[in-house]
Amino acid sequence: MCELLGMSANVPTDICFSFSGLMQRGGGTGPHRDGWGIAFYEGRGVRFFHDPAPSVESAIARLIRSHPLKSHVVISHIRQANVGKVCLENTHPFSRELWGLSWSYAHNGQLDERLYELPLTFYHPVGTTDSEYAFCWLLGQVRQRFPSPPGDIAELSAYIADLCDRLRAFGVFNMLLSESHYLFCYCTTKLAWITRRAPFGEARLKDYELTVDFCHETTPNDIVTVIATEPLTDNERWERLGTGELIVFENGLEVARRSPPGAAV
Amino acid sequence: MCELLGMSANVPTDICFSFSGLMQRGGGTGPHRDGWGIAFYEGRGVRFFHDPAPSVESAIARLIRSHPLKSHVVISHIRQANVGKVCLENTHPFSRELWGLSWSYAHNGQLDERLYELPLTFYHPVGTTDSEYAFCWLLGQVRQRFPSPPGDIAELSAYIADLCDRLRAFGVFNMLLSESHYLFCYCTTKLAWITRRAPFGEARLKDYELTVDFCHETTPNDIVTVIATEPLTDNERWERLGTGELIVFENGLEVARRSPPGAAV
Repeated sequence: MCELLGMSANVPTDICFSFSGLMQRGGGTGPHRDGWGIAFYEGRGVRFFHDPAPSVESAIARLIRSHPLKSHVVISHIRQANVGKVCLENTHPFSRELWGLSWSYAHNGQLDERLYELPLTFYHPVGTTDSEYAFCWLLGQVRQRFPSPPGDIAELSAYIADLCDRLRAFGVFNMLLSESHYLFCYCTTKLAWITRRAPFGEARLKDYELTVDFCHETTPNDIVTVIATEPLTDNERWERLGTGELIVFENGLEVARRSPPGAAV
Repeated sequence: MCELLGMSANVPTDICFSFSGLMQRGGGTGPHRDGWGIAFYEGRGVRFFHDPAPSVESAIARLIRSHPLKSHVVISHIRQANVGKVCLENTHPFSRELWGLSWSYAHNGQLDERLYELPLTFYHPVGTTDSEYAFCWLLGQVRQRFPSPPGDIAELSAYIADLCDRLRAFGVFNMLLSESHYLFCYCTTKLAWITRRAPFGEARLKDYELTVDFCHETTPNDIVTVIATEPLTDNERWERLGTGELIVFENGLEVARRSPPGAAV
């Protein structure tokens, strides 16, 4: 299994604090030694860092921790390999272009062989992971259904949730996905988020001896949502997504939600 | 205009020496202050670094210089903006997936408005540069002509050269392109290359006080070709491509060449 970390914010925000916690799980407090990667969106552009080395030992990870890159949307992943050997092309996040937008995606979980019965259309995997195959299928389906971007985020979100449901039938599918503006989060087993806004308080990392007082780091209008496979701090209240639930964030705020089919409302 | 740097090698090779020279042109000895980027291939995987800040001031560029990443194929670019504002999505190299391969591309030159009459098929630009538009058109044409990879590199190279000729009709089109294994180099006005192999000698950078004795850095079987818009060293003999010429390198060696149409042979 792997660890996921995502962020959606209304102002360019650095993810150093949360990333400091996550990278400890890459061979430090966790077993996820098989590489890591991160996507930072700045406007429509995106900056990737991929490293098949453990994050806790990585010079590039240290650079990111010490050299804050500010972003509206971030997707990060540290990997414990199950399907596919440890190599650069199997390192999340994966990316493809659709509608002139750079889509990025990272997956936690494992999908069984039935996945490969889903036909690929436009996009083909470069590596050998189930995760990248699922992404290529999902994005190809979105492209077929919406040759140009739908105006309505609810319509797009509902369709993406349906596709995620189909993938969840093959195993565990926790996912973060973005096209630069929205952050789509889908849960099978574990995904938790917190929205920080004024009045900001103090947060203490679980995985690393580090406390930050966000009221010194932020302005009163900042809204920052962080989402991860497990809560990263032990003195704040994180909310958990349900099985089969999709939540979409824009500028740090929830803008769409598709609760699991058949769930009580 | 911009600067291009490419490498093709038969063993994983670090590009620190050449990159040290190139990055000085990003605001040091040259006027190219509008960002830089680099793609390092490792097998089928590729690692990108993109930075809209000048390379000479960039912490990420310093990391690459001090932390050697070994690669078979490298494409790098430093930018002096002409078309398109300075931002992350306008920073080369650009990339798209075709045939389950990550294609990367960087362009030096400028193309006029007739470029935008070329119809896009599959790939669409994320940013606003003429360079990325040309790449999207070119790769879309390759995809239409070859829905699956042609077995013959000469056939693919000849078709890519024809597409480059069409782009050259709109202005200056110096280009580096790779799908992970081959490095395609097309020249309108300036591109020069050198192949280093045993017996290795000393090389002295033009842009930076640095000399390296490659016989200490290499094994007798290493073959490393470096290609750049202008020669990077002043004590070695670089060869220049002609206008309309395409050369393709594989493992450091030339494997295909298409001389300009109508050139004397």
